[in-house]
Amino acid sequence: MDYIMEEKFLAYLNEIYLLKQAVALLEYDSQTGMPESASDQRSEVISYLSGQIFHKEIHEQMPEFVAYFKENPEQLTEFGEKVFEKVLKNYDLNHKIPEDRYQLFVQTTAEAHHAWLKAREAKDFNFFAPYLSKIIELLQEFIPLWHTDQKTPYDVLLDQYEPGLTTEELDRVFGTLKEGILDIKAVLDKKESIDTSFLNRYVPKELQKKYVTYLVDELGYDFSRGKLDDTVHPFMLAINRNDARITTRWDEHDVSMALFGVIHEAGHGIYEQNIDPQYDKTPLSTGVSMGIHESQSLFYEILVGGNYAFWQYQYPKFQEMMDGIFDDIDLETFYQGINQVKASLIRIESDKLTYPLHIIIRYEIEKMIFNESIDIQEIPKIWADKYEEYLGIRPQNDLEGVLQDVHWSGGSFGYFPSYALGYMYAAQLYAAMNQEFSVPDALRTGNYDLIKQWLTEHIHQYGASKQPNELLLLATGQSLDPNYLIDYLKDLYLN
Amino acid sequence: MDYIMEEKFLAYLNEIYLLKQAVALLEYDSQTGMPESASDQRSEVISYLSGQIFHKEIHEQMPEFVAYFKENPEQLTEFGEKVFEKVLKNYDLNHKIPEDRYQLFVQTTAEAHHAWLKAREAKDFNFFAPYLSKIIELLQEFIPLWHTDQKTPYDVLLDQYEPGLTTEELDRVFGTLKEGILDIKAVLDKKESIDTSFLNRYVPKELQKKYVTYLVDELGYDFSRGKLDDTVHPFMLAINRNDARITTRWDEHDVSMALFGVIHEAGHGIYEQNIDPQYDKTPLSTGVSMGIHESQSLFYEILVGGNYAFWQYQYPKFQEMMDGIFDDIDLETFYQGINQVKASLIRIESDKLTYPLHIIIRYEIEKMIFNESIDIQEIPKIWADKYEEYLGIRPQNDLEGVLQDVHWSGGSFGYFPSYALGYMYAAQLYAAMNQEFSVPDALRTGNYDLIKQWLTEHIHQYGASKQPNELLLLATGQSLDPNYLIDYLKDLYLN
Repeated sequence: MDYIMEEKFLAYLNEIYLLKQAVALLEYDSQTGMPESASDQRSEVISYLSGQIFHKEIHEQMPEFVAYFKENPEQLTEFGEKVFEKVLKNYDLNHKIPEDRYQLFVQTTAEAHHAWLKAREAKDFNFFAPYLSKIIELLQEFIPLWHTDQKTPYDVLLDQYEPGLTTEELDRVFGTLKEGILDIKAVLDKKESIDTSFLNRYVPKELQKKYVTYLVDELGYDFSRGKLDDTVHPFMLAINRNDARITTRWDEHDVSMALFGVIHEAGHGIYEQNIDPQYDKTPLSTGVSMGIHESQSLFYEILVGGNYAFWQYQYPKFQEMMDGIFDDIDLETFYQGINQVKASLIRIESDKLTYPLHIIIRYEIEKMIFNESIDIQEIPKIWADKYEEYLGIRPQNDLEGVLQDVHWSGGSFGYFPSYALGYMYAAQLYAAMNQEFSVPDALRTGNYDLIKQWLTEHIHQYGASKQPNELLLLATGQSLDPNYLIDYLKDLYLN
Repeated sequence: MDYIMEEKFLAYLNEIYLLKQAVALLEYDSQTGMPESASDQRSEVISYLSGQIFHKEIHEQMPEFVAYFKENPEQLTEFGEKVFEKVLKNYDLNHKIPEDRYQLFVQTTAEAHHAWLKAREAKDFNFFAPYLSKIIELLQEFIPLWHTDQKTPYDVLLDQYEPGLTTEELDRVFGTLKEGILDIKAVLDKKESIDTSFLNRYVPKELQKKYVTYLVDELGYDFSRGKLDDTVHPFMLAINRNDARITTRWDEHDVSMALFGVIHEAGHGIYEQNIDPQYDKTPLSTGVSMGIHESQSLFYEILVGGNYAFWQYQYPKFQEMMDGIFDDIDLETFYQGINQVKASLIRIESDKLTYPLHIIIRYEIEKMIFNESIDIQEIPKIWADKYEEYLGIRPQNDLEGVLQDVHWSGGSFGYFPSYALGYMYAAQLYAAMNQEFSVPDALRTGNYDLIKQWLTEHIHQYGASKQPNELLLLATGQSLDPNYLIDYLKDLYLN
């Protein structure tokens, strides 16, 4: 058999992949270097090319390929089958969405983003509410078209970010997780908080950059296939696996921000850099889901970067490279400082313990929006009430509350749970890894290769060729269990 | 009349313009930030999108538009006419080139570039010669297809970079220019050379950057619609007029390199930033020709940056911002230093006087290749002989000689003359400007706006909506006259 159609199919997918690489760079640049005056022109380029991509994914030759391989599955190699499965899923999902409605959705999110910025300035949800309503209405229109066999409308959204995930499952794991965290928090609330002001000492950007560059290079981020740039809202973006870039912002009065920020993004980057080259030029050459991606960044940021053993090895180097700024701070104090718990109104400023509560709040509200059709106007109050209930603090305005995150303005509902999922995955992977070798021992001796190799073998290499739950099962022998994270947090905070 | 077809035509051109902006960023990034490991993937993206652009410029709906507006010119507004004229010229030029031959040409230049790099390492033209031959053969195949009414094959190539320019004209002006330069050189050769070693004092990159950024901002380069990045081979690239980026390399032991390099690129950038917004989204929103573009960069680099009056105002500021490094060097010595004449084998290291001789040598050889079909193997010897004859120095190997420039590996024959043309244009513009106000007085008082406004009024605003010779005539009242440059150089060196 000569698989001529598969060859044509792969060549067609490569065209999509080439366009996606261009869009990736256009987006990267717009957040790292582009003069702001050029933002209108840039949006126009990005939306034009994104339209081309959508068109190729759903129209042009795609319907023909889909029909052909459904009819003649034997015309696909084993590899081609995996690729087709992924393509088909996206096709099935989107081909029922009328192109003009999709365009309207894209346009609405662009407008909503502006409205969100305006609302933030005014600290007033009312500027944003009408646009949010429009987005939600459009999603409610799309959900029946996207729907395959999910039980509730919100399940349809969840599935797009974490294939196979359901509200039933999330209710269960988030229920357990919430309880576990609140128990730990109750104990900690009785303890006295420690002085962490040393973390606000002035550290010049160049010093910070030198150390953190050394560090993530040691951890396995390959600078010959990536780079570190400055930005406002840090992110990792892989144009392809040889060009997986990370970004950070620097605060010369908060050394921990860029330090853990860069470790986090490097975790994302290491994932992309180590996807099997066989998936090049196909939609499998990327992380499998938002949750699994976040598991890799959080593994490095928290399970590695928050680990006592890690700092046993690194702290003397850190002290040395910080030019004496932390010479009077001993390892114990530093370690306590970076792991301190303090409830925060802002998700991205949260500590390691209460972080999942921020996510659970968003999850509960999103579920209410799509499964219970609550009034949009009610959201700020619901939000504030939940923060008061779970975290014991209440936002004084919408900027500290419902307006803090960009996701909803982009129409990303069902995305937030990924953050907490990634955290739970990371803890479960950490436990599984410890079955094979002592991770603390590896950290204590700077043997980071061992860790990277394990993650590459069990996660990275597969790209998007397996389902998230399948990956987790293969790597850890179990499906998702929130108790790994709870145990890890107990160990971190109560021992 | 409602000009519906023109609207469609402009929308179609905008698609091409959007694709070109993407390619521009992909190329910019590949020379300023991309990890080298990603170069294969990047080439693939660029060549895919370039293919799309070529396809849209010549095929798809273009033949229909061309036929329609040729038949119905009254369906074009005055603005549409200008745009159509430009588009038609490109269409007429390229539509006879078979697409597979064009692809082969693109591929051959990519291979030739690699061969050129290899030849440079070996300092041996023989590694490059076979690829150069292939490129020349392909160009010789294209020339009859491109040909409209030019007299010689090389005229066909010249016209692509400087519309309207002929070998007859160039023979005339280069003849005069060569003679004028050699006369001045003969006088200078009898003078003693001065000590310029102070220009090699160590100056930290950050100091250099601070001054030169301040300086080009003063001169009128708008950083809010551009930026300055590091690179290996400096260039300016305008993604659009709100995003005209400049690049430089830094030598901490040669302060003049980045200083005049950045002024030069800023001159290009100021041009692009000041094109009339009415030409946005059309092929008129760019510089009109390589020669006119170079006239703007050289105007700033040499006519401004090499001007005594300019340094009368700037030198105290320069001294101050250089942290005392040049406190013992007086203005006179500095000025003599930056304008020193010393024949060089390498074009880009050349002084202000002998620079055009480098160009004239290349012009003469290119003309021999296309109009006299000389043997490619002979080029290194011809090159060396000409350097010995005109500049009195002879390359000891091919790296110092024929392999020094990248242009031929990219198939750019007919491009080199632009550099000398730009220089002559710049001197002629300088003379014309002096008719309206004293440029030295403006420089002596830091009144740079006056200069920028004059250049914008006479050159920048028009974008590519006029022919180069038409622009020059309008701006100076005369067609190209090399004596302006000769007079300027006499004034600079013999007074």
